[in-house]
Amino acid sequence: MSYEKKFKALKNLPDTPSVPTGANFIQYRQTGKLLTLSGYGPLNGSILPSEYQGKIGSDRTVQQGYDASRLTGINLLLIVQKAIGSLDKVDHILNVEGYVNCTDDFTDHPSVINGCSDLLVEIFGDKGKHTRSAIGANSLAFGISVEIGISLMLK
Amino acid sequence: MSYEKKFKALKNLPDTPSVPTGANFIQYRQTGKLLTLSGYGPLNGSILPSEYQGKIGSDRTVQQGYDASRLTGINLLLIVQKAIGSLDKVDHILNVEGYVNCTDDFTDHPSVINGCSDLLVEIFGDKGKHTRSAIGANSLAFGISVEIGISLMLK
Amino acid sequence: MSYEKKFKALKNLPDTPSVPTGANFIQYRQTGKLLTLSGYGPLNGSILPSEYQGKIGSDRTVQQGYDASRLTGINLLLIVQKAIGSLDKVDHILNVEGYVNCTDDFTDHPSVINGCSDLLVEIFGDKGKHTRSAIGANSLAFGISVEIGISLMLK
Repeated sequence: MSYEKKFKALKNLPDTPSVPTGANFIQYRQTGKLLTLSGYGPLNGSILPSEYQGKIGSDRTVQQGYDASRLTGINLLLIVQKAIGSLDKVDHILNVEGYVNCTDDFTDHPSVINGCSDLLVEIFGDKGKHTRSAIGANSLAFGISVEIGISLMLK
Repeated sequence: MSYEKKFKALKNLPDTPSVPTGANFIQYRQTGKLLTLSGYGPLNGSILPSEYQGKIGSDRTVQQGYDASRLTGINLLLIVQKAIGSLDKVDHILNVEGYVNCTDDFTDHPSVINGCSDLLVEIFGDKGKHTRSAIGANSLAFGISVEIGISLMLK
Repeated sequence: MSYEKKFKALKNLPDTPSVPTGANFIQYRQTGKLLTLSGYGPLNGSILPSEYQGKIGSDRTVQQGYDASRLTGINLLLIVQKAIGSLDKVDHILNVEGYVNCTDDFTDHPSVINGCSDLLVEIFGDKGKHTRSAIGANSLAFGISVEIGISLMLK
């Protein structure tokens, strides 16, 4: 099955993320075959679900963090679709930079960012495997539980 | 007006940042047409103004963070000038990685990093628009309120 | 002396890091002449020494952070060896992204990340000099005191 078909088969895909009016940053930039995306969060269209807001380790569980990270990955792939028309034009995922909004004593950042990593491999197979970092942040924009940016190479 | 002229027309440009003697990192590296800069902060020459030190959300306001972020952007462009001679050799800004030294309950990181993003578009127009991340940090070097790194493509 | 010989002359080199079974991320990815590594920490083989766990500024000293950062750099070079066979194939180090697990009032992140920066220049000379960022994190995976990712160009 093609990348695009696998992605479209996911249930409850949210609307494609938009940028705030007047913002001076952009969602993605293509430079040759390199596509770089801005950091994004676990929004459902224009709504930020309350279960994906707050700190992992106190307000939220690792499982909620995993789900927030998966939803963030879905949003990033919706942006890739918008950028290049179809996920079938992706050659491979290059890098994932994941930040976890968490308590000072939290130690399971990898399990949270796995939500995005697992999605990428679910869609792209071995071509979805990527280098990554999984870093703690004492706070994130709008109180989102995770922020993730990715870069990838096109065919 | 050229990028270089627009930049030189800014008031109160500080001295070009220098690296500490004996440091094993560098301010910039050019690899082909890609120019990558080290993370830098809101210094005014060799002075760190006290209003750009401390945590946004308690010690400092969002507006002070915005101003710190703009000054950091100016420093980064002074380093670009040093690296390649003239801002007119810039084709477009690629990526901005912004870290905000802030309280655990701060949620307005984008408004802080906008100080740098707005400057880049003021100088380079649409070519200054970039992907970015805006991340919270519980502390930064020397207590600076923001640290920002950028990458860009040359003509 | 070759890069490879200099590196092998270091004392007490740990075993080459491995990835957890079933993980969907990878340790490195080569794209043309660019080699990008995942963020890694101060492990000694599969052991995380207790002196490299905990927060710099309270649990751990800056010197312990420096040592943790140097050991992390050694691990990253072991991964480079695994990826390309020999350090002699490295042209130059491009970028170092360093995160320091630290207290909210810590301000000496550069001295910690110097442990990795100094190692890179010890092995590669001027070709080891790199752009970098040194950022505070309120927590890191498994309680490691530093996490560092690097990218480099091959000959």
